[in-house]
Amino acid sequence: MALLGYLAASLTTVSFFPQAIKTVRSGDTSAISLRMYALFTLGISCWGVYGLLTADGPLIVANAITLVPAGLILERKGRALLAGRRRRH
Amino acid sequence: MALLGYLAASLTTVSFFPQAIKTVRSGDTSAISLRMYALFTLGISCWGVYGLLTADGPLIVANAITLVPAGLILERKGRALLAGRRRRH
Repeated sequence: MALLGYLAASLTTVSFFPQAIKTVRSGDTSAISLRMYALFTLGISCWGVYGLLTADGPLIVANAITLVPAGLILERKGRALLAGRRRRH
Repeated sequence: MALLGYLAASLTTVSFFPQAIKTVRSGDTSAISLRMYALFTLGISCWGVYGLLTADGPLIVANAITLVPAGLILERKGRALLAGRRRRH
């Protein structure tokens, strides 16, 4: 049963990497929701702090790993929006 | 401290809704990674089953809610890929 939990945690953590790779490679963030990645990155940061406060190792590790691709996607989306705004003015 | 955990869970759960709304409204899935949503949807399904097996209410609820937008994005991406394949032949 614990194995299913580890499988679930691995799948949801690993899943953000193909999206981050696709986003960084293509530079295309048009279909990516800024709100999703703003809320999600804030959410996993809260999970990480919660893990630190409750001294929960797996929670800290899983969220620290997920923060890398999620933060990268958020940064690319933000950068594309700023570049778009600059072009319009 | 528990409040921070609930905040974290709410943020990561809620975050998928703006992406699903954007994807359904625009129909644009070009920048969306099929692999991400395939792995993520499988992952939260595993989390849900793990929640059922361990009788963990919050785990069942959070993952059942997340399954709706994540599954919707996966379905739209899959549909767009199939439509693209049909056009090429």
